[in-house]
Amino acid sequence: MPRKRDPKNEGGIGLPLNESESDPDPDRAPKKFKSALGSGSGDDLPSGLDQFRPYPIHKVNRLLEPGPVLLVATGSLANKTHNIMTMGFHMMIQHEGPTLVGACIGPWDKSYDNLKKTGECVLAVPAVEMLEKVVDIGNCSGEDVDKWETFGISPVPAPDPALDSGSGDGKGAQEERAQAPLVGGEGVIANIQCTVQDQALVARYNLWVLRVIGAWINKDMDLEYGQGNQMPGDDSDSVGGGKLRKREMKMAHHRGDGRFVVDGKEVDMRDRMVKWKEFQD
Amino acid sequence: MPRKRDPKNEGGIGLPLNESESDPDPDRAPKKFKSALGSGSGDDLPSGLDQFRPYPIHKVNRLLEPGPVLLVATGSLANKTHNIMTMGFHMMIQHEGPTLVGACIGPWDKSYDNLKKTGECVLAVPAVEMLEKVVDIGNCSGEDVDKWETFGISPVPAPDPALDSGSGDGKGAQEERAQAPLVGGEGVIANIQCTVQDQALVARYNLWVLRVIGAWINKDMDLEYGQGNQMPGDDSDSVGGGKLRKREMKMAHHRGDGRFVVDGKEVDMRDRMVKWKEFQD
Repeated sequence: MPRKRDPKNEGGIGLPLNESESDPDPDRAPKKFKSALGSGSGDDLPSGLDQFRPYPIHKVNRLLEPGPVLLVATGSLANKTHNIMTMGFHMMIQHEGPTLVGACIGPWDKSYDNLKKTGECVLAVPAVEMLEKVVDIGNCSGEDVDKWETFGISPVPAPDPALDSGSGDGKGAQEERAQAPLVGGEGVIANIQCTVQDQALVARYNLWVLRVIGAWINKDMDLEYGQGNQMPGDDSDSVGGGKLRKREMKMAHHRGDGRFVVDGKEVDMRDRMVKWKEFQD
Repeated sequence: MPRKRDPKNEGGIGLPLNESESDPDPDRAPKKFKSALGSGSGDDLPSGLDQFRPYPIHKVNRLLEPGPVLLVATGSLANKTHNIMTMGFHMMIQHEGPTLVGACIGPWDKSYDNLKKTGECVLAVPAVEMLEKVVDIGNCSGEDVDKWETFGISPVPAPDPALDSGSGDGKGAQEERAQAPLVGGEGVIANIQCTVQDQALVARYNLWVLRVIGAWINKDMDLEYGQGNQMPGDDSDSVGGGKLRKREMKMAHHRGDGRFVVDGKEVDMRDRMVKWKEFQD
C-alpha cells in the first residue's frame, strides 16, 4: 500500500514541473530541450532522448513498487566512466517530499565506486523484450568489458532534471544537475534520475537512500496497460502523446534464482482504495 | 540481480536448520513442533500452522525480490494486540549473514506502534486469490476495526523460529523468539518472521531494517511454478511434501494506484546466470 504523504512537507513541494501527463501538446517537453541542452549534434534532442518524455517524479512509485528488475547507470559519459549494472534489490521509500528510493549496490559492483564518487545514478526499468541483455549485464563486470558496447545499449546524455522534471524541493538547478546517462532504447520503459540522499546505511548494508530528481517514460508506453478508457482514435491526451503507437510494456520480476516472472493480467482495485485516493490522480 | 554473499560472514553461518527442501520425509517438520510447542489445543500443530512448512531463511529473496504486495502482522496474540496491514514498500537487502529486508512502516500505521514496542513482525506473501482482502486490509485501520475478524483472516500462533528454522547467526533461541502471529489460510504463499535489526533510518524515513529469523511456505505452493522437471507421480521430494496437491500460487504486484499486476508467464534465465550460481541451489 502507498505510504501517506507527510503533511508537514506538503506545503513546500508543489507539483513537479513535468506534471504533463494530460498535457495535450506532445511537443512541450522536446521544445524545452532544444534551448536548454544546446546539443551540438544538430538534432532537436540529445541522441536517444527522443524515445522518452518527462514523467511526474511523485508517480515513480508506479514504476518501482511492482518490483521490476532494474538497470542502473552510473558515472559520466563525459569522462567515459559510465557503467551499467542489473539490480533486483530496491524499494520505494517515500512518494514525495522528496521522492525516495532504496537500493542495494555493494563494493563488489563497479557501480559502487561511481556512485561514491559522483553521488548520482539512473534507475532504468527494462521491458521483458530486453531481458536476455538485462541478465547478461548482471553476469559480467564493467571492470572487464564495456557493457554498453557489448550489449548494444546506448547511453543517453543526461538531461537537466531540474529544468524539465522539477526539483520539487527548492534546490537550484546547478545543485541538481545529474550526469549519469539515461539508458536508451525502445525496450526501456522508464529512466529515473537519482542523487544520493543518505549514505547512513551504506557501510553496514550497502543500502543507499536515493532521491529522485527526474523521471522519463518511454513515449510508446501505455500507462493504462491496455485497459484505459480512451475512445478509439482519441489519443491526444494520453501518455506518449499524439500519434505514437502504444505498447503495454511488460516488466520482469526476478525470482531470485535466475527465473523471472513477467507481468500478467491486471486486476483493477481502484474502487476499493478508499483511503488512498490521493495516489490515483 | 542477487547481491554477493559476504565472505567474511560466511564461516559463521552454516545452512539454516530447516534446509529441508529435498527432505523426503514430509513429517519431519511437524514432528518437531509437537514437542516444541506443547500446544494445549490437542492438535499436532498450532491452529493453522499445518498449512505451512519451514522454508530456508537464505532463500526468502525468492519470495520478496519479485516485489509482491505483502501483509504485515505485528503485536501479540497473547495480549490481543495483534494487527495486520498491507504494504508495498519493501526490499531485499541481504541474502544472509543475516538475511535482511527493508520495509517502510510509518506512524500513520497502527503497526508502527506494535513494531516499536515488540521489535517483531511477520511479512506474509498473499496469493492473488485473496487480493480483495489484501486491498481492504490496506484501506482501513486497526484503530477502528479488528481486521482479522472483519476479513476472516486467522492469526497463527508464532512458532519458535530458532528451533525449527535456524537462527543462522549464533544467537540463542530465547533471544530469537518471535510473538507476532503468522497469517493463516490457504491463500497465503508464505510467512516470514522478522525482528528489527536497525532503526537508524526509522525517524528520518520510516525505513526499518528487518532481520529474517524464520520462514514458512504454503505446503501447496509449487516452487517450480508448474515448470519443474518432476516425473508424473513423483512428488516425494518436492516442496509441499508427499501427497499434497501443488498450486502455482501467483503473487500480485501493486502498480501504486490501486491497480495490480498478477504474475504471468515465467522466463527461465538460469543458464545465463554464470556469475551467480550460488543462488540457484
